[in-house]
Amino acid sequence: MAVNNGLFEFGLQNIKMKFVALAGGVGGAKLADGLYRVLPSSDLTVIVNTGDDLEHLGLRISPDLDTVCYTLAELANLDTGWGRSGETWRTMENVRRLGGPEWFKLGDTDLGTHLERTRRIELGDPLSSITRSFCQSWGISITVLPMTDDIVHTHVITSELGDLPFQEYFVKYQCKPRVLSFQFIGIESARPAPGVIEAIQEADWIVLCPSNPWVSIGPILAIPGIRDCVLQKKVIAVSPIIGGKAIKGPAAKMYEELNIRPNALAVANHYKDLLTSFVIDNMDVSEANQINDWGIISLITNTLMMKITDRIRLAEEIVDFCEQKRRETRK
Amino acid sequence: MAVNNGLFEFGLQNIKMKFVALAGGVGGAKLADGLYRVLPSSDLTVIVNTGDDLEHLGLRISPDLDTVCYTLAELANLDTGWGRSGETWRTMENVRRLGGPEWFKLGDTDLGTHLERTRRIELGDPLSSITRSFCQSWGISITVLPMTDDIVHTHVITSELGDLPFQEYFVKYQCKPRVLSFQFIGIESARPAPGVIEAIQEADWIVLCPSNPWVSIGPILAIPGIRDCVLQKKVIAVSPIIGGKAIKGPAAKMYEELNIRPNALAVANHYKDLLTSFVIDNMDVSEANQINDWGIISLITNTLMMKITDRIRLAEEIVDFCEQKRRETRK
Repeated sequence: MAVNNGLFEFGLQNIKMKFVALAGGVGGAKLADGLYRVLPSSDLTVIVNTGDDLEHLGLRISPDLDTVCYTLAELANLDTGWGRSGETWRTMENVRRLGGPEWFKLGDTDLGTHLERTRRIELGDPLSSITRSFCQSWGISITVLPMTDDIVHTHVITSELGDLPFQEYFVKYQCKPRVLSFQFIGIESARPAPGVIEAIQEADWIVLCPSNPWVSIGPILAIPGIRDCVLQKKVIAVSPIIGGKAIKGPAAKMYEELNIRPNALAVANHYKDLLTSFVIDNMDVSEANQINDWGIISLITNTLMMKITDRIRLAEEIVDFCEQKRRETRK
Repeated sequence: MAVNNGLFEFGLQNIKMKFVALAGGVGGAKLADGLYRVLPSSDLTVIVNTGDDLEHLGLRISPDLDTVCYTLAELANLDTGWGRSGETWRTMENVRRLGGPEWFKLGDTDLGTHLERTRRIELGDPLSSITRSFCQSWGISITVLPMTDDIVHTHVITSELGDLPFQEYFVKYQCKPRVLSFQFIGIESARPAPGVIEAIQEADWIVLCPSNPWVSIGPILAIPGIRDCVLQKKVIAVSPIIGGKAIKGPAAKMYEELNIRPNALAVANHYKDLLTSFVIDNMDVSEANQINDWGIISLITNTLMMKITDRIRLAEEIVDFCEQKRRETRK
């Protein structure tokens, strides 16, 4: 809150900035939550990957959207990084007993979200308006948007098992197969969800959250129209790879299998043409020079978000840094 | 067990009888359970009403089939008469919070049954084979058959609210609207599930369980082919109305609204052309003479099944009675 209080003290409400955060699951949700706690609600929109969405047991499941919303609503399971806190597993226990598929775990409370989302989708409601309604129910005061209301399916092409829908690669095969490439099925005809382009156009800064660049941020930017719009904006990215390792998930492993050394530099390079600034962890300070050489200004700080206070501190530092950059541009 | 032990003692296995029970929900499930505990597994088939089935929250729900199976598997909630014992309600609590429909209560464990049933139906499995598989999983050793694999929807035509799907009449409106008539939508083209006709043909006795004659037993008998087949057999019915009142559900209220005095006599009259015998409660002994006058032989006993021992005793008495009738016919 320090940043805003600072702004308000000086009566600078009129120069407050609007942010759009692009996010996948866990890491993205954490930074989105930090920004949510730091910025006025009207100044933040979170656009979430839906390429990981799946239909399972007849239900429409949006893992990243749910992780982001559960995190913002303080309903998330902080241990697993997915699902709800204090969850129980009675439904799945019965499904298992009846011989049904149990590889994709659905908690009892979490299931209510999927049942109600599926019911409304079958009534013809678009995912974006369902998400808006869910956010209201959960008391989330910012706008959370799916990247698209259309169906996009991220597939991972692997050397051992060929073409795998993302959740099979991720959950069923625990990211073990070697990655050859990615495919976002349906992306060519997918349209940005209502509000996505408008939010980006109105934003002062776009934040690429510390989510997987290949399968979380990648699909969002691949929706026709979104990358072009982001290109017009000041963009700051936070690396999901710290000290050569992904905090969670297969990002580092994917870079390696695609013959790219997994580090912050690789992430900066990934987003190179989009970036104004890049947040580098103190551990990776040696990579800052190279990134600066590309004309990308680095914010060097501690980017690991273990506790909720870490999310807030990192978000404050990013907002502070962006404000400073804007003042410099104005001079 | 006394009955079978008796038969086996005299080396009479070769004259053991086969039973088919037609059942709806609670009352039917209780007598089916009594018969299940008394008869060898190979000698009992239960055919269950599916006219009450509904699609809700995208799930295929078979309330009577589930009540029968949960009861036989000792998983049923004895207090409510539906759903599972020791149930929790976390999924519905979340659905409610999200503004979804909450009039039809689905417990967390119970939901697993509906999810897995729906998944298999969408794969093209017929309800009868799904039910067989579920019975195996739950350790139920007799054959439980849905009346049909086709979709039949019982509707209640009411004076206040017009045409209501059964579960809306039953659950949402708590049987309050006045009944004018019933409609079994889809019944003309519904075929008996595989095994239904064979089981009836092979049976020595058909037991019409103490379920609602209008909306539980009625739809089963209305499937083309079933009534004609039952007509060839010895049939014994147990009244769901005792002392002018239905033990559970709207049977008595329905008779009243259709201008028929609700009592055991009304139930016997309902099934008149089918019946060989009729089980009358001690409370209703005054009605036995009239029933005897119709050429229907009465078994007069205590038919209220409060405890599990009541189910066993009533089943034993019915099996004993049927055996005695057969011996008399043979003489």
